[in-house]
Order: sequence, then structure tokens, then C-alpha cells
Amino acid sequence: MSVQALIDYTLHLGDNALVLGHRNSEWTGHGPILEQDIALSNIALDLIGQARNWYEYAARLINGGGGKEVTEDVLAYLRDSRDFRNCLLAEQTNGDWGKTVLRQFYFSAYQFYFYGALEHSRDKELAAIAEKSLKEVTYHLRWSSEWVIRLGDGTEESASRMQRAMDELWTYTGELFVPADYERKLSPAGIGVDLAAIRPLWEQRVREVLKAARLESGEGVWMQTGGKQGKHTEHLGYLLAEMQFLQRAYPGCEW
Amino acid sequence: MSVQALIDYTLHLGDNALVLGHRNSEWTGHGPILEQDIALSNIALDLIGQARNWYEYAARLINGGGGKEVTEDVLAYLRDSRDFRNCLLAEQTNGDWGKTVLRQFYFSAYQFYFYGALEHSRDKELAAIAEKSLKEVTYHLRWSSEWVIRLGDGTEESASRMQRAMDELWTYTGELFVPADYERKLSPAGIGVDLAAIRPLWEQRVREVLKAARLESGEGVWMQTGGKQGKHTEHLGYLLAEMQFLQRAYPGCEW
Repeated sequence: MSVQALIDYTLHLGDNALVLGHRNSEWTGHGPILEQDIALSNIALDLIGQARNWYEYAARLINGGGGKEVTEDVLAYLRDSRDFRNCLLAEQTNGDWGKTVLRQFYFSAYQFYFYGALEHSRDKELAAIAEKSLKEVTYHLRWSSEWVIRLGDGTEESASRMQRAMDELWTYTGELFVPADYERKLSPAGIGVDLAAIRPLWEQRVREVLKAARLESGEGVWMQTGGKQGKHTEHLGYLLAEMQFLQRAYPGCEW
Repeated sequence: MSVQALIDYTLHLGDNALVLGHRNSEWTGHGPILEQDIALSNIALDLIGQARNWYEYAARLINGGGGKEVTEDVLAYLRDSRDFRNCLLAEQTNGDWGKTVLRQFYFSAYQFYFYGALEHSRDKELAAIAEKSLKEVTYHLRWSSEWVIRLGDGTEESASRMQRAMDELWTYTGELFVPADYERKLSPAGIGVDLAAIRPLWEQRVREVLKAARLESGEGVWMQTGGKQGKHTEHLGYLLAEMQFLQRAYPGCEW
């Protein structure tokens, strides 16, 4: 097994969580109602907390190889867009509330089956973080499923907005199940997750929720890929510019 | 006892928590390090959650008097600056990390003694929310005290920044202990908090922490007042414009 592949894999998991967590945190103070503002902010914090766990592990792997000391903060704040390995889905802009909850639903369903498999990894660190995260993700999935159904099966306005959100986001769901090179390298060792195995579970869950929401899924669309390998949409650059400003303007700041 | 005074009192408590919570949430994704970004975001969520509890109670009191149905969201999102009764301290801008943690320290120390007294209120609703909030505030006070000491007793740069933060914020601490008219009306009934009684406790705590931080307190400065009575600094208007935009642009939106 290649240590570099394990590092890339761990960073990929951290980047997914950090980028989506940051997107969600953009809603804080802007949610439609206080209760849901708090709920989504809590999900954001869960994800940023998960990112921190992944980065801590990645930093340990990197430092184990000697060289300069890397921290979780260096990994979060001082890497460039092309070094981020998050799925394109995570970096898509918030749009309206419907697009945000749909993005969360697609992603939480993915994390749910992904972590459920990863908690059996032969790498005990990956397994432990996955197990801890799965508890949070289970709630995220329930929360976002309920919102998708509520809005899809809601008013004419809310249903048409959800349909538009689906049209915008569906093209980014395929990448979730296309293994990046570092994912392919880990599979034989029983460390990573077999994406082909969890794909039908994800599809089944999505079908069920969309059906309850009376929404038509966008099958057959061209699927965008690249994020996992560092090729991102323009949105990630803006997100990082905002998120990383402080640390780049004042390197090593303690403020 | 005047019900209107109790409503104003409860709104005052909600506004304190909401405005400071929103200020803190502006840091999400901008904290100096991931761990502390998460810590401050959690404090923001605690405060917004407290605000929600106060607003729910205020809404029940208002609706009990008949007339149109008011919700906690109406109270958070559809009142104007002059209807907000938060202390001026809560609305002060974030400045750098040092100013933010000092503002939190002053305010958490105030909430700590305030809630500690209010949990003995003869109004059981006020007492219950205070008791629940006190657990959170106890952590906020410890967290912010540690930061004030760390930065005050840190590098030359951090100490000078903390001293500047003190010069900026001290003038807003006096108002915490000047009773507004609705506070004076509640006192005889054993419902509100006797501010004169908790003031020496707050001062003692502040002295101790500032001493440990090797900072000089700004005694003898002119004290600003007015926030509790709806007279705010310009900062609150900008904060509300940002926080309330969505709900005002799309009244009653479910998005």
C-alpha cells in the first residue's frame, strides 16, 4: 500500500467535509427560520469537526515521513484550489434553501453508506473517524431527507424550485462513485471503500426520497468529474479566497 | 407587575443573545485555527439557541394578550433597530480575534452572574431558561477567560492588541449594570435580577482575569448607555440589515 495514496485519500475525506461545512456555514444568520438556521449551522459544525479529524490524521501521516511539521491548519488554510480533492458537489454554491438541502441530501446519503463501509476498514484510524462521523451523518441524512420531501411535495413554487435544484446538481452526483487514482490504489488492501458496492444503495435511497417528494430524478445526464483529482469548478476558488484570507494575509497568526 | 415590562425584559435577554451570537457567527470559517473556529461557532450557536428560547417565551406572552400571532422568527427578523434592547457591548464589531474574545469575556462574565441570579426568579419560565443557559455560559466564560489571559500575557504584539481592545470596549461595560425602565419595574416583584448586587461580582471576576492577563483595566472612563432602551450605535443597523435581509425581502418565505 502506498502511504501517499492513504494521505491523498484522507485529505479527500477532509476536503469533502470542510468545503461542504463551509458552504453550510454561509447560511448562519440567513436561514429561513431560527430553528433551521441553528440546525444547518450545527450540521456545518459537524462537518468542519469531521474535517479536522481527517486533517489531523493526514498531518500525522505526512509528518511520519519526516520533513517540515504539518498541522491540520496548514492543510485547511494553506493549500491551493488544485490541491483540494473534494467532490465537485460539495463546492457548488448554496443557491436557495431548496438547493442547499438537496445538496446536503445527496451528500449525506453518500457519506452515510461511505462511512458505513469505511468503519470496517483495516486502517483503524480511518475506521474510528468514520464510526464517529457516522452518528452525525445519520442525523444529517434524516434532516435533509425531510426537507427534500417537505419542499418537493409542498407548494407549486417549492416543487418547481426543487426541480430546478435537481437539474443543477444531478450532474455532480456521478463523480461520487468514480474512483480517483488514490481510491483505486487503496482498494486491494481492504482499506478504502468499494464505491461500486455502495452506489446501488445510494441510488435506492435517493429514488425513495425523491419519490416521496414527488420529484423526477435526472437520470441520463452527462456527469461532471474532476474534483477528486484537483480539477474544480470556479466556485471553489472563491470559497477558498474567503476562507483562507486571514491565514494567508497573516501567516502563522495567533489571532 | 406589568406584562409589558416582562415582555420587554424577555426581549432584552433574547436580543443580547441573538446579536452577540450573530457577531460571533461572522467568524465561522475565519477563525485563526480550526479548533477555535469551531469553539467560537459553537458559542455562537449556544447564544442563538438561547435567543430562540427567550423569543419563544416573549411570543407566548405577547400572544396571550390577543391580537395577531407573533412567532420567535418575527421577533428576530422583523423588528427594527430601535426595537432591539440589547446592550451596546453585544453589537460592537468583531475587530481582531483579541477584541472578539474580550467582548465575549465581558459579556459571558455578565451572563454568568445574571443567569445565576435569574434562575431563582419567581417567574418559572425565566428561571428555567436561565438555568439551562447557565450551563453553556459557564463554558463560554472559561473559554474566553483563557483566551484573554493567553493573549494579554502573550507576545508584545498580542498584549498591545488586547490593551487596544480594552480601550475600545470598556466604555460599553457600564451599561450592563444600569437598569432600563423595564428592569426597574420588575425588581420589586422578585422576577428580575438586581444589577447592583451582581455588579461587584462581575468587577471582581474581571479584575482577577485582567490581572492574570497583565492588562490594565480602563477604570474611570465615560460609560456609554442607551442600547437597552433602543438607542444603538450605527453597528446594529448594519448587522440587522445583513441578518434580516432574507426575511424582509421574502416575507413569510419558507425558503
